Amino acid sequence: MNVHVALLHYPVYNRERQVIVSAITNLDIHDIARAALTYGVRRFFIVTPLEDQRQLVQRLLTHWRDGHGARCHPERKAALRLVTLTASLNEAVASIKDLCGRPPELMATGASLAGLTLSYSQARERIGRGDPLLLLFGTGWGLSEEVLGMADYLLAPVYGFADYNHLSVRSAVAIILDRLLGRRDDRQHSSRGDGGQ
Amino acid sequence: MNVHVALLHYPVYNRERQVIVSAITNLDIHDIARAALTYGVRRFFIVTPLEDQRQLVQRLLTHWRDGHGARCHPERKAALRLVTLTASLNEAVASIKDLCGRPPELMATGASLAGLTLSYSQARERIGRGDPLLLLFGTGWGLSEEVLGMADYLLAPVYGFADYNHLSVRSAVAIILDRLLGRRDDRQHSSRGDGGQ
Repeated sequence: MNVHVALLHYPVYNRERQVIVSAITNLDIHDIARAALTYGVRRFFIVTPLEDQRQLVQRLLTHWRDGHGARCHPERKAALRLVTLTASLNEAVASIKDLCGRPPELMATGASLAGLTLSYSQARERIGRGDPLLLLFGTGWGLSEEVLGMADYLLAPVYGFADYNHLSVRSAVAIILDRLLGRRDDRQHSSRGDGGQ
Repeated sequence: MNVHVALLHYPVYNRERQVIVSAITNLDIHDIARAALTYGVRRFFIVTPLEDQRQLVQRLLTHWRDGHGARCHPERKAALRLVTLTASLNEAVASIKDLCGRPPELMATGASLAGLTLSYSQARERIGRGDPLLLLFGTGWGLSEEVLGMADYLLAPVYGFADYNHLSVRSAVAIILDRLLGRRDDRQHSSRGDGGQ
């Protein structure tokens, strides 16, 4: 399993479908890093072209990795060690190429993807091959067409009940990692409960 | 399907396993309300005994339901209509009894639950019966023994990869709702992709 996650703050859409740079949300960093570590993701790339935003996040990371936060919250430290800041998606791809010897395939996600999308079982099968894969998540109102055009695969949207889907990107990452990388046998941790209640 | 969610801020543990009242986190309200609506949850109870915290949340809810937020973000309004503020778990139970004619069964969640836990397939089967069910989530370091003792069922923890589990409560709610209430056939929205790529 060789899965990486990128959270893109550019190029993404706003509500009016204009391409923008979105602001980094502090809880995205924590929630997604923790989910990434829980599901065995190798690296979590936070992508923004804004130098001052990267500097801000770098200060937060230093606090949690080396400062007071690391001593008080060791489980946060472990999760935030997965975070890599990059200025662009291409830089994240190059970083994975350095790590794995070849560039990753790109799998884009989005609430409104349609057409030639990959099902979750198909995506699990590809992940099982062990080739490097980078899952792309967009902030704001989703990844721009430019990014979708770069992707090797489009992952089917998460649907819950009816067709309402306004999950936060934090929730979407958690659900998608669970679907793609979670243990399938949900009974193995409840053997004593199988006959009870 | 007759599922309700409660996010408890008391009685929960802190890091030192003392029973505390935790502070409400703004993004919990939004993320969990949006996930609740996505998965067809009937009501989302935010439970805190602190009157000033309930007043604060009430002001936020009014903004998003009736104020400027409702006009600019109609999808937030729809999600936040599911939110009910209560001072205690018993009050939430009474509210569901009023709505459904009988009290719900209580299903507690937690990262470290062990013993007689219910698997996800068992929990889905119970949900399928249509009886009112209230899923309990704890903030801080999890639900106190007092709450666990009131529960009819303990749901097996979410495990991802190895045994690291430090998901945020927001991520845990999203994953658990997807496991319990998500559509099982993940191919139905990707029919054109089944033969491709």
